[in-house]
Amino acid sequence: MESQQNYDSLATTLRDRRVRLAQLIDFPVILWAGKSYPRNFPANPFPFRASSHFLYFAGLPLEGAAIYLNDGRLELFLDEPSPASTLWHGEMPKREEIAQQMGADAAFPLSELASRTADAATLAVQDIATYQQQEQLLNRCVNRANAPEGIDRDLAKAIVSLRLCHDAEALSELRKAAAVTVAAHKAGMQAIGGRDVATECLYEATIRGAMEGMILAHNMSCAYGSIVTVHGEVLHNEQYHHPLQPGDLLLADVGAETERGWAADVTRTFPVTGRFSATQRDIYETVLAAHNACIEKIHPGVEYRDIHLLAAATLTQGLVDLGILRGQVSDLVERDAHALFFPHGIGHLLGLDVHDMEDLGDLAGYAEGRVRSDRFGLGFLRLDRPLQPGMLVTIEPGFYQVPAILNDPERRAKYQDVVNWNRLAEFADVRGIRIENDVLVTPEGSEVLTATLPTEADAIEELVLLGGRN
Amino acid sequence: MESQQNYDSLATTLRDRRVRLAQLIDFPVILWAGKSYPRNFPANPFPFRASSHFLYFAGLPLEGAAIYLNDGRLELFLDEPSPASTLWHGEMPKREEIAQQMGADAAFPLSELASRTADAATLAVQDIATYQQQEQLLNRCVNRANAPEGIDRDLAKAIVSLRLCHDAEALSELRKAAAVTVAAHKAGMQAIGGRDVATECLYEATIRGAMEGMILAHNMSCAYGSIVTVHGEVLHNEQYHHPLQPGDLLLADVGAETERGWAADVTRTFPVTGRFSATQRDIYETVLAAHNACIEKIHPGVEYRDIHLLAAATLTQGLVDLGILRGQVSDLVERDAHALFFPHGIGHLLGLDVHDMEDLGDLAGYAEGRVRSDRFGLGFLRLDRPLQPGMLVTIEPGFYQVPAILNDPERRAKYQDVVNWNRLAEFADVRGIRIENDVLVTPEGSEVLTATLPTEADAIEELVLLGGRN
Repeated sequence: MESQQNYDSLATTLRDRRVRLAQLIDFPVILWAGKSYPRNFPANPFPFRASSHFLYFAGLPLEGAAIYLNDGRLELFLDEPSPASTLWHGEMPKREEIAQQMGADAAFPLSELASRTADAATLAVQDIATYQQQEQLLNRCVNRANAPEGIDRDLAKAIVSLRLCHDAEALSELRKAAAVTVAAHKAGMQAIGGRDVATECLYEATIRGAMEGMILAHNMSCAYGSIVTVHGEVLHNEQYHHPLQPGDLLLADVGAETERGWAADVTRTFPVTGRFSATQRDIYETVLAAHNACIEKIHPGVEYRDIHLLAAATLTQGLVDLGILRGQVSDLVERDAHALFFPHGIGHLLGLDVHDMEDLGDLAGYAEGRVRSDRFGLGFLRLDRPLQPGMLVTIEPGFYQVPAILNDPERRAKYQDVVNWNRLAEFADVRGIRIENDVLVTPEGSEVLTATLPTEADAIEELVLLGGRN
Repeated sequence: MESQQNYDSLATTLRDRRVRLAQLIDFPVILWAGKSYPRNFPANPFPFRASSHFLYFAGLPLEGAAIYLNDGRLELFLDEPSPASTLWHGEMPKREEIAQQMGADAAFPLSELASRTADAATLAVQDIATYQQQEQLLNRCVNRANAPEGIDRDLAKAIVSLRLCHDAEALSELRKAAAVTVAAHKAGMQAIGGRDVATECLYEATIRGAMEGMILAHNMSCAYGSIVTVHGEVLHNEQYHHPLQPGDLLLADVGAETERGWAADVTRTFPVTGRFSATQRDIYETVLAAHNACIEKIHPGVEYRDIHLLAAATLTQGLVDLGILRGQVSDLVERDAHALFFPHGIGHLLGLDVHDMEDLGDLAGYAEGRVRSDRFGLGFLRLDRPLQPGMLVTIEPGFYQVPAILNDPERRAKYQDVVNWNRLAEFADVRGIRIENDVLVTPEGSEVLTATLPTEADAIEELVLLGGRN
């Protein structure tokens, strides 16, 4: 249970959010929370995760609820738990009590929602059961969230403009998620610290357990499926069965999510023995240089696309310096040579979703009138907007030796003249490195919310060797 | 990756299962694995959990796959990953390779499945997207799994008769889940061990994190939403925010699930200081007596309902001895007085589902012709069958002071003469105790798969005080 003071602050924030929404649109809105999904039978559900748009205006993860927003007014639609469920789930707060926590103007059972559907806009939720209810109650077609039409599209745009820049309540939650995520990464390093991977049987899963255990211990959940892998070259690797062996780098991309749904997203890559090899350290420093350059450049008004291109240029310069790439950096980036080793975007929006508002397609990520590039080195960029104070973005450059890319005959031919393949072969012990932090755009420049987790190679080594206890 | 030997053993088992199925039915069967559910946007899914019926015959959790079973033959229908997905998810085994692991007779892309749908039976999966595909492909109505009709019902009954008694492969998986679950419970106790809950800030979440972290570290997942609570009287409590305070009992109901989907389900209740109060120990011993009596009685041919009634009688005897209940034990059980404090069944089937085959309603739990009782003390019983060798059941007696039950005026009036309310008030520091183990019915009697986790009060105290290290 939270204190009344917390709820007062929440209620004030929610009022502010819907008043600002009312300045952007002139029609009513209904947002649904959605429902938990059954696992192998209905009484064994996956943990409930409310729709992010609902959470933004309702504040609390209320399964099965809906809210009605109109001209700054908030109405909660929620059924009371059945008497039988009290036996199994205990006394739950009553609808009126929850309505008060949220600062709702009124509260009704769900059956009353039908009286509010005229001319209301909505956004489709992810779960099909609730989605079908949305269409049924509104008595019209509701497009999937990534292709809203009519007033739903107007609503989506209005919500994007609000959610792009975080208010104080959101930042407070995002800072909590960041702090616990830092603790989780330290726990992962501590799980290795002082142990001899050559003789002890440690697995990727060992480290994942330590990290996610720390997140759960803080009563948070994981914002996304953790990546904890010695095969960092598999970008979305969600397998954890490989043993840790001397010489391996472990890439851990793990982030916490607060009870109210706000996310963190952090990656560190560290040697499982606690010591980088010379080749690993060379590449690590190259990725870190890109990371640092990007963060230094973050400032209101700067184009995020330019941050991405700066990462590409910095990485490319590093690879030229190491003798892996040959040529002028600007030419190489122009030819997307960097994307041979860095085939994803420099980052994305972060908020209630780990890729914030990605349910809306590119409506949030791309400024009005912009579309994805078809360039190999730009097509995966998730964000193409000028930065504004209050935006939270990830900065996550990486270097990967992806067989599907590097062994592709067409690409090998295209980049034959710019890659020194023999030199590259000397870096075989670097399969994948990524360094990722969560960076808030401030009026003065930027603030790294996850700065208490070091990035420098020496500091990473020390954390692993000391068991992550400092 | 598993060894070829493991796959050979799996393939042999799967062949045996479908040959036995073919002896029970004379029509083809299609089973779907289902799909993962989107979390807040489609690229951020919840972990995939395949349908249990699919897992039973396919062995491996293959997202989006279907299998066709006919007369002992197995065909796999699965699409190859797209080339683009190789970049993100790495090289995955090819369809033919997976088919070989399973011992399938043939393998095809999903588009070929339409050629196998004539006269095929199926069981509805839990996810609506796949469920709608089932109806579309079979071109007929498919009832939800808890109310199958026609050949689907015949299939359900045949599958129940197979899944009721576990084969060697299943038992091997169930033993793995049990062993990791034991380790998780010890980790939970260790997280408290040696710490002073009066001065240190420990929460239910602290213990949950330690327990689930251990499960993840073994590359398993949780078979169900963990209950880790100082409010054990809330039977399905899934909140973890309460602080641990001296005098609290912590009830932890946590179970692991193997990668192939086999579950464990274990509960222990322990004092967070490491020492039971006299009243807590009195009730604990009473619940333990019921637990032990039930396990001793388990034997092929014994009715599980009689095990439940034995638990009721043993608990009631204990409460009479403590002066909480008054009267003849047999009369008290007849009047359901035990259910004031033990309002659930003694346990349930355990296998691929934590309540095995509960998706089929009571088809698995209740023998042909039997239905749920409307008695307060029997209605929650999930299993009413004679025990057979190879059945795995939980034994989980408990004592709870549930306000919704004990403060109900009607019940208070009904049981006014048999409850010594003043005496009961002396046990206010016992809100909820449950002791749960996973028990295999053997030809000779029973085997407790989770026996390495002690149940005796002294041993529990020792585990907590020593930090669970023995």
